[in-house]
Amino acid sequence: MTESSDGKIQVGILGASGYTGGELLRLLAGHGGMEVAMLSAERRAGRKLAEVFPHLSALQAPDLIKLDEMDYSALDAVFCCLPHGTTQDVITGLPSHLKIVDLSADFRLRDPALYAEWYGHAHRAVELQKEAVYGLSELKRGEISAARLVANPGCYPTGPQLALAPLLAAQQIVPEDIIIDAKSGVSGAGREAKTEILFSEVGEGVHAYGVARHRHAPEIDQGLSEAAGRPVSVSFTPHLIPMNRGILATLYVRLAGGASVAELRETLQQRYGPEPFVHITPEGISPATRDVRGSNHCLIGLFADRVPERAILLTVIDNLVKGAAGQALQNMNLMCGLAETTGLSQAPLFP
Amino acid sequence: MTESSDGKIQVGILGASGYTGGELLRLLAGHGGMEVAMLSAERRAGRKLAEVFPHLSALQAPDLIKLDEMDYSALDAVFCCLPHGTTQDVITGLPSHLKIVDLSADFRLRDPALYAEWYGHAHRAVELQKEAVYGLSELKRGEISAARLVANPGCYPTGPQLALAPLLAAQQIVPEDIIIDAKSGVSGAGREAKTEILFSEVGEGVHAYGVARHRHAPEIDQGLSEAAGRPVSVSFTPHLIPMNRGILATLYVRLAGGASVAELRETLQQRYGPEPFVHITPEGISPATRDVRGSNHCLIGLFADRVPERAILLTVIDNLVKGAAGQALQNMNLMCGLAETTGLSQAPLFP
Amino acid sequence: MTESSDGKIQVGILGASGYTGGELLRLLAGHGGMEVAMLSAERRAGRKLAEVFPHLSALQAPDLIKLDEMDYSALDAVFCCLPHGTTQDVITGLPSHLKIVDLSADFRLRDPALYAEWYGHAHRAVELQKEAVYGLSELKRGEISAARLVANPGCYPTGPQLALAPLLAAQQIVPEDIIIDAKSGVSGAGREAKTEILFSEVGEGVHAYGVARHRHAPEIDQGLSEAAGRPVSVSFTPHLIPMNRGILATLYVRLAGGASVAELRETLQQRYGPEPFVHITPEGISPATRDVRGSNHCLIGLFADRVPERAILLTVIDNLVKGAAGQALQNMNLMCGLAETTGLSQAPLFP
Amino acid sequence: MTESSDGKIQVGILGASGYTGGELLRLLAGHGGMEVAMLSAERRAGRKLAEVFPHLSALQAPDLIKLDEMDYSALDAVFCCLPHGTTQDVITGLPSHLKIVDLSADFRLRDPALYAEWYGHAHRAVELQKEAVYGLSELKRGEISAARLVANPGCYPTGPQLALAPLLAAQQIVPEDIIIDAKSGVSGAGREAKTEILFSEVGEGVHAYGVARHRHAPEIDQGLSEAAGRPVSVSFTPHLIPMNRGILATLYVRLAGGASVAELRETLQQRYGPEPFVHITPEGISPATRDVRGSNHCLIGLFADRVPERAILLTVIDNLVKGAAGQALQNMNLMCGLAETTGLSQAPLFP
Repeated sequence: MTESSDGKIQVGILGASGYTGGELLRLLAGHGGMEVAMLSAERRAGRKLAEVFPHLSALQAPDLIKLDEMDYSALDAVFCCLPHGTTQDVITGLPSHLKIVDLSADFRLRDPALYAEWYGHAHRAVELQKEAVYGLSELKRGEISAARLVANPGCYPTGPQLALAPLLAAQQIVPEDIIIDAKSGVSGAGREAKTEILFSEVGEGVHAYGVARHRHAPEIDQGLSEAAGRPVSVSFTPHLIPMNRGILATLYVRLAGGASVAELRETLQQRYGPEPFVHITPEGISPATRDVRGSNHCLIGLFADRVPERAILLTVIDNLVKGAAGQALQNMNLMCGLAETTGLSQAPLFP
Repeated sequence: MTESSDGKIQVGILGASGYTGGELLRLLAGHGGMEVAMLSAERRAGRKLAEVFPHLSALQAPDLIKLDEMDYSALDAVFCCLPHGTTQDVITGLPSHLKIVDLSADFRLRDPALYAEWYGHAHRAVELQKEAVYGLSELKRGEISAARLVANPGCYPTGPQLALAPLLAAQQIVPEDIIIDAKSGVSGAGREAKTEILFSEVGEGVHAYGVARHRHAPEIDQGLSEAAGRPVSVSFTPHLIPMNRGILATLYVRLAGGASVAELRETLQQRYGPEPFVHITPEGISPATRDVRGSNHCLIGLFADRVPERAILLTVIDNLVKGAAGQALQNMNLMCGLAETTGLSQAPLFP
Repeated sequence: MTESSDGKIQVGILGASGYTGGELLRLLAGHGGMEVAMLSAERRAGRKLAEVFPHLSALQAPDLIKLDEMDYSALDAVFCCLPHGTTQDVITGLPSHLKIVDLSADFRLRDPALYAEWYGHAHRAVELQKEAVYGLSELKRGEISAARLVANPGCYPTGPQLALAPLLAAQQIVPEDIIIDAKSGVSGAGREAKTEILFSEVGEGVHAYGVARHRHAPEIDQGLSEAAGRPVSVSFTPHLIPMNRGILATLYVRLAGGASVAELRETLQQRYGPEPFVHITPEGISPATRDVRGSNHCLIGLFADRVPERAILLTVIDNLVKGAAGQALQNMNLMCGLAETTGLSQAPLFP
Repeated sequence: MTESSDGKIQVGILGASGYTGGELLRLLAGHGGMEVAMLSAERRAGRKLAEVFPHLSALQAPDLIKLDEMDYSALDAVFCCLPHGTTQDVITGLPSHLKIVDLSADFRLRDPALYAEWYGHAHRAVELQKEAVYGLSELKRGEISAARLVANPGCYPTGPQLALAPLLAAQQIVPEDIIIDAKSGVSGAGREAKTEILFSEVGEGVHAYGVARHRHAPEIDQGLSEAAGRPVSVSFTPHLIPMNRGILATLYVRLAGGASVAELRETLQQRYGPEPFVHITPEGISPATRDVRGSNHCLIGLFADRVPERAILLTVIDNLVKGAAGQALQNMNLMCGLAETTGLSQAPLFP
C-alpha cells in the first residue's frame, strides 16, 4: 500500500458532500489507521469541508475538489458515495490498485437483467458487477476480506437480511410468506433539495412511499433467496418518519416445520453471539432506533405472534452507520486487514 | 330533551382534562347545536378550563368539577373520557335519560370472557355491555342512531376496520392472512406523566410496543370476524412515531377467489362513495397522516403488491379526531338526530 | 360586486400552491361568504388542487391555471401569494374593481428608498406603494376597511408590533432599547425546495439566520416608529425551530418614565380587551405556540424582569394564520364589509 | 490512587439512571484511563444497566445499587448526578480521598445567602461550598486541576459565560446591558415523568419558562460579575425547543468604550485560539446546535447589530456534553492529571 509516512492507509471519498460522505468523515476522524487524503464533490468543488459540514470544522481535512482532479496514485482506498447510475462509469475508470467500497446501488444486484429491470437501463460495467462482493459484513466476511470492490448494502436491506437469512438457511420460516414493513428517518433520502423532504412536508406526520416498487425489494430478495436456496420475493413497504436517523423494520413471518420462536431465537443467538455489532434483544424487549443512534449496531428482537405459527421480528439500525457509512468502513477494515471494529466503537447517542 | 333556552343540547364531558376531552371541546366550540354545560376532572377539579387547556382560553366554558358534583338532570348527553376500568362503574350509575358516548375501552368488546381475558378482571356491567353499540359510525349507523350507549372505537381499530370489513364481507381477501402494522402519534398514549412518553424518550426515534399483546387486537378481530362471518385473528403491531397526532396503518392482505386490486378498489368506492369522512385515494397515491390532521377524515389507499395475489392497503386518520373525539361527536350527532357532520367540517391542517 | 348567484364574493388566489395559498384555502373552506373561483400556480398549472394539496381533496375547487389565464372580470377579490419582487408587476396590471390583499413584502414598506435599500432594486409601482394600506388588522382597521390594496404584514412583525405599539404610544417603554428574539416554525421559509430547510438539516436542532439583516426588521421599525412618533430601530434575530408552525417572539424592553409592568399590562388590556383575536395571558402565564396552532389568535404575555426597570414580553401566533393567511382573510373581511371574524373562528389545535 | 490492576482510575457514578448519568457512561466507554466500577440509582437499584439504558447494552457495566451500598474505598473518583438539595448531604459524607465532580446545582453558588434565596433553604454544607471550585474548564483550569470537589456548571450558564467573560474582562461590552435568550432541548429538563415535558406537550411547539426567575440566572451573574470586576445582573429567558439535545443562546450586548465587533472577535480568538473545545465561527456564520450534537464543543459566533454600538453573539453547546457530562469528564481529567480531551474527541453527529 502507498501508505503515508506514519503508515496510515490513504483514503479518498468520492461525492463527499452528502450525508453518507459526512458520516464517513465523522467515523474516520476516530479511526487511527486511515487518513482522509482527498475529497471530491462536483458542485461544491473549491470549497472548504467546513463550509459544507460545519460540524466537522475541527477536523483537519483536504478541500473539496472535482472528480477529475483526483490523483488516485496517492490513494490506497476509495469510498464511492456518488449517485446511482453514474457510479458504474466512474468506478470502471479507477486504477486497479485501489480498494473500493461503493455506497451506491450500482453493484448490489448481481443479475444484469434484474438491474436493467429496476434501474431502467442496461448495466454499463457488467464485468465489475460480477467481480463486486455484496458487503453485508457479517454474512460475507470471507469474500469481503478478499475483495477489491465491495457493493455496500442498501440501508433498508441490511437489518432484515441479518435477521432473516439465518432463519431461512435453518428452514425455520416459510420463504413464501415474508412481509417487511420498514420505517426510516429522513436522512435516508439524501441531501438533494427536493420538495417532498422539506421539514414542513414530513414533520409531524408519517407516510409510505414507493409502495410495492422500491428498489431495495429486489436486493432483499436476492439475499434471502441465496439464504433459502430458492427464489424468495418479499412484501416490502418503506415509510418516512419525522426523525433524522434510524431504520426500524418490522418483519412478519410464518414458522416452518414446527419451529418455535424460542428456536428462532436460538438460531440467531448462535449465529451472532460473538459478533460485535449484531445483538439479539432479551425476551420481551423491543429494539428501538434510539438504542443504536450514531452507532454501527444492529439489534434484532423476536416475538411470538398471537396468531398461531407466526412470529414478529424487529430490527433497528442507524441508516447512516450500519446502513451506510459504518458498514462501509467495517468492510474497508476487512479489505485492508485491519480489525473490523476500528473506528466503529462509538456507543449510541441517547437521548 | 332538557334543552337550553336557545334549544341547544346540553352536554357534559366526564374526564375533560385529557387529550380527548380537550379535543371534544375544540370540536364542540364549532358545533352550533350542542352546548358544553358541565366538565368533570377529578384531580383538577376547581380549576378553570383555561388553566388545563390554555389553547381553549377564548372559549366560554364551565369550570372543572368533581364527578360527584355533576348534576345530570341538567344534561341531555354525556361524553365519557374516563380511564378504562373505572368507566363501567360510573356509567352504571348514570340516569337513563342520558345519551352516552363512551371513549374508554370498557364497552367495546361484546364478549365478557374476552373482556376478562384482555383486561384482567370480570366486567362489572355486563348488562350495559350487551346494550352498548359499537360506534364505528359508517358501519353501524343505524344501530348508533337508535342507541343510548355507544362504545366509541379504539384509535387503532378505526382505520383498519373501515378498510377491511367491506373486503371481507365481499370475500375478496383471505381472513386468515391479515397483517396490520400501525404507526401512531404520541397523543394516543394519553396525558398521564409517564417516563416512556417523555419527549426525550420518543423524540428522534421509532419503536414498537405491546407486540402481539395490544388490547386493540381483539377489538379488531371482533369487527373483522363479524364482517367475514367467521373468526378472524389478525397480526397487529403498534409503533410510536415522534409526532403528536395521526395514525397510519399499513395492511398486508392476500387476495381471495381471484379478486384483483381493481375489484377491491371498486368495492370500497361503492361502499364509501357518498360518505363525507371516508375517501379512497386515487391510484398510485399513498395517504399520509398530514392529509387528515385535525380533521375527521379517514383515507384509504390500495396497491397491488409485487408478490402475486397480495395487496397492500394504507389507512390514515387523526387519532384524536376520527380515532376518538371526532367519531364520538359523529356518533352523538347520530344519536341526537342531528346532521352527522355537524361540528366536523374542519379542513385538515397542513403543514 | 360581481357576486355569484348565491351572493358569495368571488375570490381568486394568485400563487395558490405554496403554504400560504393552501392555508387560505383551508380557511375559506369554512367561510360562508366567499367562494374560491380561480387559482393560479405557474409551474403547477393544469394540475388539480388535490395533487398539490392532498389534504384539500374533499374541497370543491377549481384546477390550477396560469396567471395569464385568469379572468379577473369574474372576480371580486384577489389574494396575492406571489414571490417578492414579481408581485408589484402583477398587481400593477390588475383591474381596479378588485379588492386585493397582497401577502408578499412588496407593499409593506412605505418609503421607496427603504424598499430599494433592503430589496436591492427600485420599486416599480411607487404609486401603488403609496396607496397600499399596511394590514395589521387591529391597528389599522379603519384604513383597511376603506382600502383597495392591503399589504399583509410579515409573519415576524405581526406579534411584536401588536405588543409594542400601544406601549410606545403610551410612552411606557424606551424606544431606543428594544430587542426582539423570534423563533419560527419552518413553514415560514416557504415550500420551495431548498437544502437548508430539508428535514435532516433542521430536525433536532435550532439556529439563528439573517442575523442583523433580516428584511422584517425595517418593517418592524416602520410600525414602531409610527407608534412612538420618532424613529425606532430594533435589534431583531430570527431563529428556525424544528416545528411546522408557530412564531414565538421574546421582547426585551426598558420601562420608561417610571412605568410598571402592571401599567403596561393595563395598557394592553385596555387596548385589546374587546378584540376577538388578541389576548393578554394572565399574570405568570407564558404563552406558547401550541396555544394558537391553526388559529388566528395572538397571545401576549408580560413579565417584570429581575433586572430593575426592564420587562420581558412574549407574543405567539401561528405564522400561517395570524402571520399570513388568517390575517389576510381578516383584512379581506374588513374590506368587503363582512364580519371580521368570518371564517376565522377555529379553535387552536392541541396537541 | 487505588487504581485497578491495569492502572485505570476507578470511577463511580451516583444517580446513574438519568440522562447525565447515561451520557457519562457513553463518554467513559471510550475513555481509556477510567473504569466504571460502581453505579448507584435509588429507585432502580438491583436492575441491570441495560434495562435502564438499552443503548448501553453492549457495555460491560456493574449493576445498579443503592447509595448506601457503595463501597467508596474501592473508588478513586465520583461523578455525582443526584438531585439538587440532597446532593450536599451525600457529598458531605464522602471520604476525603475521592475526587468529586458534582453535576447538581448545590455547589455552584459561592454565596450562602444567594443560595438560600434561590433554593429556598439554608445550605447544609457551607464549608464544602467554600472549598468547591466552579468547573468552567476553560476559565478555571488551574483551580480545577488542584481541586478535590468541582461544581460542574449549569447547562445554560456554560456558553454565555465562555462568550462574555473575556469581553467583560477586556471592558469591551457594557456590564449593565446584557440580555441572554436561551433555547434548550428537552433533555435538559431531566428524565423524571412530568406532564409538561411529555412529547405531546412540547412537540411541534416552542415556549418560554421560568421567565425572570430561572436559577441559572444568579449563576451567570456570579461568573460575569467576577469577570467584570463589579456586579452584573443579566436578563435571562430560557425556552424549550422540540429537540432532544442542544442549547443555543443568543446574547445581546452593548459595545463599551468604542470597541468594534472586530475587536470583540479578536479578544475571543486570542482567548480561545488553542482551546480544543471552544471555537469562534468565521465572520457571517451562525453556529447551530447541529454543529455540536454529541460533542464537547462550544461554538461562538459574533455579529455587528444593525443598531449602532450593539452586537449579537450566539453560542451553541450540547447540553448533555459540554453542558453536563462532557464538561464533568473534562474537569475530572484535569483533576486526575490526564490529558483534558481524553474520552472527549468524538466528532459531532449530523444530521
